[in-house]
Amino acid sequence: MLVKSQVKYIQSLGQKKFRDPEGVFVAEGPKLVSELLMSPHLPLVTLYAVKDWLEINRERLATLSSHQIVEVRNSELERISFLATPNQVLAVFRQPSFTGLPLKQGSGISLLLDNIQDPGNLGTIVRIADWFGLRCVVCSPDSADVFNAKAVQSTMGSIGRVQVSYEDPAAYIDRQKGLPVYATALGGTSIYTMERISRGIIVIGNESKGIRESLLSRIPHHITIPRIGEAESLNAAVATGIVLSHLAL
Amino acid sequence: MLVKSQVKYIQSLGQKKFRDPEGVFVAEGPKLVSELLMSPHLPLVTLYAVKDWLEINRERLATLSSHQIVEVRNSELERISFLATPNQVLAVFRQPSFTGLPLKQGSGISLLLDNIQDPGNLGTIVRIADWFGLRCVVCSPDSADVFNAKAVQSTMGSIGRVQVSYEDPAAYIDRQKGLPVYATALGGTSIYTMERISRGIIVIGNESKGIRESLLSRIPHHITIPRIGEAESLNAAVATGIVLSHLAL
Repeated sequence: MLVKSQVKYIQSLGQKKFRDPEGVFVAEGPKLVSELLMSPHLPLVTLYAVKDWLEINRERLATLSSHQIVEVRNSELERISFLATPNQVLAVFRQPSFTGLPLKQGSGISLLLDNIQDPGNLGTIVRIADWFGLRCVVCSPDSADVFNAKAVQSTMGSIGRVQVSYEDPAAYIDRQKGLPVYATALGGTSIYTMERISRGIIVIGNESKGIRESLLSRIPHHITIPRIGEAESLNAAVATGIVLSHLAL
Repeated sequence: MLVKSQVKYIQSLGQKKFRDPEGVFVAEGPKLVSELLMSPHLPLVTLYAVKDWLEINRERLATLSSHQIVEVRNSELERISFLATPNQVLAVFRQPSFTGLPLKQGSGISLLLDNIQDPGNLGTIVRIADWFGLRCVVCSPDSADVFNAKAVQSTMGSIGRVQVSYEDPAAYIDRQKGLPVYATALGGTSIYTMERISRGIIVIGNESKGIRESLLSRIPHHITIPRIGEAESLNAAVATGIVLSHLAL
């Protein structure tokens, strides 16, 4: 049973200005919520689920305290869901905080995203980073918010395994002194001719404008996916996947 | 100036059951519409645009007849647009028909999509095919519709250059007798160890279920993108981009 203030609270979490002061985010659907419940980095705040889902997941939920679980009717789930088709469970998790931490164990490669605007692209890039074993995705402060509902859904659970932080790109590069930096940009070295790398920073630019000039001009290595056909560009997430598949060791 | 019947007609084109009998589709925004106007495969039916856009594009529109161009106010564009933020111009184009044609000049590789559900993924895959010089994307009849507004937008203009058709996957493979067929599936040969190919059919499966078993079991070559990290899967469009970047000659 949901009270009005809970509905209002969850709806407010659709906006970054309400989400961030609370330090939480929303994830939905059985698959995503089940995966995030297993992450040591994401403490659960509250879980809203229909009876059927709660019964199937009784064992998994045994360690939670009863005030963390709210049984809702489908009609109630519809009122709080951010999905076009609400799907059994909505969970509010605490945002992990990784800012300023050094690279953790895993790949020595990090992604630096310059002004990625689409939350779906951002979430997909985090999922790609996870697939290739990267531990760290750094976003310029003007990038989309990874705790946006659509971004969270697009990570498909990788938000619980990859450190996503926000920092000035130039400052991040300076902090990682000595690490090679690769800018994906037109007219660079073909990724097909490069050796794989075990460490470094790969910079991905905005969906339509690429990497901003003030940043691009600071980076000596430019790398490119050779084009065979006629499309003007590739989607930013697709380009990230292709680059990592050729370079990540 | 728009009359009510025009508004109703364009809105109806949001649904495949109204779109297909008319044999048309909708594209929006200055960049996409400008690009599609250049395609020899896509005759324009009608273009609805705000005054500013019409003035800037006066020369480009000189070959069109006056009944193909309708000047609209921003408030009218909002009533017919399928975008969250309407963007200066909406155009109705005739659907190209390529079904059953042999591969045209260009890459000897075609993509075969088995039950791709998300229109954004489908459009992005068509854009990727275009980037790698492919001429042909064949979709199983239960795949998303490439003339869906979101799919069209995601192609970023490649819908005017790549032949997208719908056909039973097994029938398509049979028609291309002798061409090697590669199924992207778990546990296949690593794409990193394969030679590039100049001809063949690459099969991409459904976003969550992969290639259906009845089709997969008919295909001897299975290929895989090796996973380094922990994400359970890659987005279908991202996987397509990675596979083509390693295999397409």
